[in-house]
This record gives sequence, structure tokens and C-alpha cells, in this order.
Amino acid sequence: MSNKSKKQKVLPDEGVNFALKKLKDGQKGRDGSVENVLKKVQKLEAIVKSRPSRRKTLKDLNMEDLYREVLDRPETEIAAAIEQLMLAVAKSIMDGNGFAYQLPSRGQNDQVYIDQLNRIVLKNKSTSAAFTNMSSVRKVTILTRVMQLVHGVLSKGIHVTKRDLFYTDVKLFKDQKDSDAVLDDISCLLGCTRNSLHVVASEKGVVVGRLRYKEDGDDIDCTKMGVGGKAIPSNVDKVTELRTDAKFVLLVEKDAAFMRLAEDRFYNKYPCIIITAKGQPDVATRLFLSKVKRELKLPVLALVDADPYGLKIISVYMQGSKNMAFDSANLTTPDIKWLGVRPSDLDKFKIPEQCRLEMTAKDIETGNHMLKEDFIQQNPDWVKEVEIMLKTKTKAEIQALSSYGFQYLSEVYLPLKLQEGDWI
Amino acid sequence: MSNKSKKQKVLPDEGVNFALKKLKDGQKGRDGSVENVLKKVQKLEAIVKSRPSRRKTLKDLNMEDLYREVLDRPETEIAAAIEQLMLAVAKSIMDGNGFAYQLPSRGQNDQVYIDQLNRIVLKNKSTSAAFTNMSSVRKVTILTRVMQLVHGVLSKGIHVTKRDLFYTDVKLFKDQKDSDAVLDDISCLLGCTRNSLHVVASEKGVVVGRLRYKEDGDDIDCTKMGVGGKAIPSNVDKVTELRTDAKFVLLVEKDAAFMRLAEDRFYNKYPCIIITAKGQPDVATRLFLSKVKRELKLPVLALVDADPYGLKIISVYMQGSKNMAFDSANLTTPDIKWLGVRPSDLDKFKIPEQCRLEMTAKDIETGNHMLKEDFIQQNPDWVKEVEIMLKTKTKAEIQALSSYGFQYLSEVYLPLKLQEGDWI
Repeated sequence: MSNKSKKQKVLPDEGVNFALKKLKDGQKGRDGSVENVLKKVQKLEAIVKSRPSRRKTLKDLNMEDLYREVLDRPETEIAAAIEQLMLAVAKSIMDGNGFAYQLPSRGQNDQVYIDQLNRIVLKNKSTSAAFTNMSSVRKVTILTRVMQLVHGVLSKGIHVTKRDLFYTDVKLFKDQKDSDAVLDDISCLLGCTRNSLHVVASEKGVVVGRLRYKEDGDDIDCTKMGVGGKAIPSNVDKVTELRTDAKFVLLVEKDAAFMRLAEDRFYNKYPCIIITAKGQPDVATRLFLSKVKRELKLPVLALVDADPYGLKIISVYMQGSKNMAFDSANLTTPDIKWLGVRPSDLDKFKIPEQCRLEMTAKDIETGNHMLKEDFIQQNPDWVKEVEIMLKTKTKAEIQALSSYGFQYLSEVYLPLKLQEGDWI
Repeated sequence: MSNKSKKQKVLPDEGVNFALKKLKDGQKGRDGSVENVLKKVQKLEAIVKSRPSRRKTLKDLNMEDLYREVLDRPETEIAAAIEQLMLAVAKSIMDGNGFAYQLPSRGQNDQVYIDQLNRIVLKNKSTSAAFTNMSSVRKVTILTRVMQLVHGVLSKGIHVTKRDLFYTDVKLFKDQKDSDAVLDDISCLLGCTRNSLHVVASEKGVVVGRLRYKEDGDDIDCTKMGVGGKAIPSNVDKVTELRTDAKFVLLVEKDAAFMRLAEDRFYNKYPCIIITAKGQPDVATRLFLSKVKRELKLPVLALVDADPYGLKIISVYMQGSKNMAFDSANLTTPDIKWLGVRPSDLDKFKIPEQCRLEMTAKDIETGNHMLKEDFIQQNPDWVKEVEIMLKTKTKAEIQALSSYGFQYLSEVYLPLKLQEGDWI
């Protein structure tokens, strides 16, 4: 060990003892019970619970004419909407006018962040795509064919993947990109979410903890899912009847941290629901988190790497990716609290120098870019953290906490964070 | 439709009707019940069940001196083995001899496929790595440190990831590759599996169907896992008490096909356990499949893409990847039957031309390489299929079956395959 302490500011034990002392100091005069540790979480939970259940819509803001977003709609309604659209097309053709679709514009200039909604929506702008126009005939044909296929899927009440769709008419679609691209157009055209079209993405998320729900009729108890957890389904509309006695949702960036918390059954002591998408959030996990937050009204605390990429992951959960702006109300989860690992934690928790990594030029570029984003700018505490990151040019992974022992995360770091209400 | 039929040999409906007729013809004089469809599967099941439960080992073949493989061993045993090794090291140092480890050689020339075992093992060859040698001092130091860390993990009875290990001593390890590399050395040195070291990989596999088991004490019923299924845990040693009334295991390459079968609750009608690793098999899924097959003695039928990559996936499940040859007994599942989609299926099931894809030069190279592999060569039916693939230079994905309707896979293709016993 002696050859380690030279370059290192603190000895590992020093860092552990410091945090343990803080944890105990915070419990002075109290009994150190879980209830005491969770006092600040419960305050946050009360605030979240007191908010109106329904999220604000464009209608509430009287902005319906200016902007556009889509809604989750039942399958019969979407099937009927497709039939209506096709009747209109048939009539237009029989009237001798040919036919065209009014497609919502979805370019970068059409994506707007609305402060009051805390999400990105689309400007209400359309372009006409006519069957009789050489430049749009192919797109209009593909659009019509995909709508026919979606209608079939909806009628059967099943779910399919984009790849399945592509293979039903390879000759027409030629490239999967071509059949994929029109799906978003159809969502916007029908004013419904991608999920409502029953075309789903593959799943990679996992959930464990104090959550019970029905999945396609099966009763799922996420406290009884062993150490591997329950796979989050692609078709989130089959998830119903959510029940919980959790006080918060712990959103974890990485599989390794999830595994640690699941094996230690962290949720038994600290009542929570633990969710991870194992890296970059997929659509299914984002829909699942959004549903959990909306229906159970729990605070969501995020545990991500202390680097621009970790922040990016929170941003995808919070405000969605820009190219699916029209679906942001269903895909996004507003008001996620940044619990850790935050740039300021590195000094606060005395993370040893050698567990900190130097940011690459690319990291710094991404960091500078993030700093300018609306969702960072509106939270001064977040701005401060990103500034620390960029000033010190230092990043760290959640796993860096392992330098104090493999269970430091579940037994010291998280309890202390919760006890101090140390989220922003 | 008319513009589709020109280049296409068969109309979609023709293909569906043909297979449906075959399915019904096969049931003539019988009642078409599931029992009748499953007659051939049950025969296969009886064969599998009649085999000795225990897999042959090097000891059975009197080859213990020639080759080397590792075993699953309990954590207390491994901890004791590390202590023994360290005592020997201390003694050697105190005797004034310094110390060295006898590390098993794991190069490509040391990997041998043993016919009677149907798996790859290592030649029993070692090289000495001495602490007092400049070229090996770093490796020996890292090896010793990682053994110390593993000893700690085993004592606590927890599981950690490679990344966790790396972060406990970044200054020594410098690069994660360096701490990862010695794990396999330690496995070989102690004669135990990687899993026995409690250092686990991240999970991505999912299971659904007629399987019940205990995971870390929780009772898991895979028929009640909704449409998303149960995430396969990283630490397979926590999976115990497997029970089933399934007749076979359906091993699926891709998430999309898994989703189709899960949503259609294929296992309700045809009693089976459905497993997928969502592409390239990870260690956890391979260990899980191996355990299921070993303990429940069920036939394993594989559903993969009709391309060299699909075959490669079967090969990884069957004989393991070569760089983990020493752990092949625990990681591999012998005697997987290739159900589909096979190159000969493309004509047999009249898969439309446009759903077949031309093989790339890289595909053909991989195919030629596969053809020479022992595990292909020992099965003439497999050789024939690969030859068809290379001759026609054509490949197809499982999803190509969607050209006959999204549920063709679960309602026509698989039932017909099962009814005809069409696996090799």
C-alpha cells in the first residue's frame, strides 16, 4: 500500500471513514433508523405527490395552433383514423384530384423547447406530399403501404418490430430506413404515439424493487425478481395497475451499479424502485419510467457517471431526443433529480486521484455543448456542476466508488446522499 | 400486388397455403391436437432424458494429464485455494527463492477440440511467471492483487463486475485490459470457472415459458412474466431448484422473434422454455442455458438467421468461444438441434425472392471458415446446409418469415417444423 499513497491525496480508508462519520453525525440525536435517513426523501415525495397528476399539454397553454404533439390513443381509435384517412384519399381520387398527405415538418428548425411544458415539441407546420409528384410518389406509396400494415397489426391486437414491418414488403421498401422513416410521419399524421401504432423497439431495460403491476394479465412483483430483475417489456401499454410502497425511483445509468444494488437488495432497506436501461436509454425504458412517475407520483433520483455522457442520459430521459420531439409528452419524465455521481462529489467524497479520469477533447466539447442546453441553463445548480467538470477537466464513473470497497455504493454513498437530501 | 409478382417466384398467399396444407396433411387421421404435433419432439425428449445426466469429463476419458479444464467450485473452496497458494508463495520467499506462478498456456495452439467431449479444452502446458523477472513482474503483481480482491469478494459472498475490480486499484492496473486478462489466468490456476470467482459479466439474456426456479430465494415462474420475460441474472449460481413441464427449449437468436413468441404465448400451446441472448450470446445466458439443459434434460432447438452469423451463434452456445476453452464444460451446451431458419428452408417454405439477401464477400468467407470447423464437419446434415448457403450465396433473417404475415412464425412455421421433426 505504501507505494500508493505518494501521489494520492487521501488514503482509501480516510475517504471511507470520513463519509461514514458524516453518515453517523447526521443521525446524532436521532435513532439512525431508515425513517430518519429518508426524511428528506419523504419531503421531496410530498412535493411530487402534491403536484397535479396530469401533465400540462399544449391545449392548457393555448398553444395548440402553434405547436404539435402526439397522444397515446387506443388501437380502435387509430384503426378508425386510418380508415377515415383512406376514405378521404379514395374520395379525392374519385373527384379527379389525385391525392396528397399533409405531412408535419419535423426538421431541426421545427423543434422547439417549451419552458412551461419542460419538453421539446414541434412547430405546427406541414408540407404536402402528393402521389402525382415524382419527388414524393415513392414516399407516399410507402406511407400508404405501412399504414395498411399498421392497420392489420392493430386489428389483430399484436405488436411488431420495425424489422418485421420491413420484411412484409421488401420489394417496395428496399431499405429498412425507408419503412422506418415513415413511421414517425404516420405518428404525426394521426396525432398518436409510435407506441399506439403497435410498432415497438427492442427492449433492454430492467426493473427491480418495490413495484407491483400487471403485465398482459400476469401479476409482477419486482421485489421477487431475484438478482437479475424483470425485463421491461417493449409494449409498455401492456403494463397496468401499478402499485408501490416505494418512496422514490432510483434511475441507474449502468448495469454494474444496478447489479450491485439488486444483489444487496438495496430496496428492502430503502423503499425504492430501481430502473436501468443499461446505457443509452431505449424507448421502452423511457416509456416505462414516464409511466411509473406519472401514475405513482414518485421523485426520480438519477445515478449516472460524472461525465457529459451521464448528463446526456439524464437529458434523454427528461426531455427526449430531438428527432422524436412530437412524442415528447409520453417519452419524457420531467423533474429528474441529479443525485450523483456529480463532479462536486469527487472532492466531497475524496475519490482518489487515480480513479478520476482526464476528459478527452471530445468530452470537453460535449460538455460545452451541454452547458448551453436549455434544460441545464434553467437549473443554476446543474450549471455549477457542469462548470466544475469543465474547469477541472475531470470525469469519473459510478464504479470509481468501488475504490472504497465494492459495497460502498449501497452502504455508504447512497444512504448519505439520501440522508442529506443531496440532489439537485 | 400485380407489380410485385413479376420477379417473384411465388405469391405470398401461395407460400402460406402450401405450408398450412402441409401442417394439416401431417395431421390426417389424427386429431391435430398439440400432442400429435409434439410426437417427434417427445421422441427426441426421451432420447435426451435417457442420456446420463453428468457430462463426460477429462477424467472419464483418462485425459486428465494431457488436457485441462476448470470446474464450478464453491466459494469457500476457492478462498481456501487462494490462501494455500499465498502460503506457498510466502514460504518460497522466506526460503530465499523468490516466487513464481505456473500459469497454464492459453494460446491458440493450446486449444484442442475433443471429439468425445464435444468441446474445446486446453492442453496441459504451463509457463512460469516469476516476480523477479523484469518481463513478468508486472503481471505477477497484478495477478496477486486481483487474487487478493477476489478473496475479499468471496469472503463477503457478493458478486462484482470486471469494471468494479479495475477501479479498486486503478494506479496498479492502469488499463482495465490488464486486470481483465489475469482473471482467466486465475481461473486456470485455481482450476475453477470464472463464475466461481464471483466476477460476473453484464447480463442481456431473457427467458420466458414453462420454467420455474428459485433466484436468490425468490420463486420465479416464467409463465407469469408478461410479454417482456425475466431477465437472466449475471450470477447464475443464484439460480436453483429448476422445475418444468416443458418438452423442449427454444433458443432464439433475436429479440424480435422472442417478442413475437412471448406476445403470442407460444409456450402455452407448445410446452417449451424460450431463451434469447439478443444476438451474440453473453456468458450469463450461456451458463443459464447450460444449466437448464443439464438439470432438466430437455432437447434444445435453435432458431437463428439463415446466415453464417446465425450458425456462429449456435457454435458459441455449443462449443464456446476459443479464448475461454478452459471453461468449456460449464459454458457450453452440447447437442443443440438446428431447427431453422436453415438455408434449405428458403426454398422449402417458398420464402419470396425479395426477402432473401445476397451474401457479402465477408459472409462467404465466414461461411467457408465455418464449413471447416470440427463441429460442423461431424454432422453431415449441417455440412449440407452450409454448402447450400455457399452455393446459392443467399442468406435470410428469421424476420423474412414475416413476409407471410407477422404471426406466420408462431402459427405455421414452428408448428410445422415441430410436427415434422424437422431439425438436424
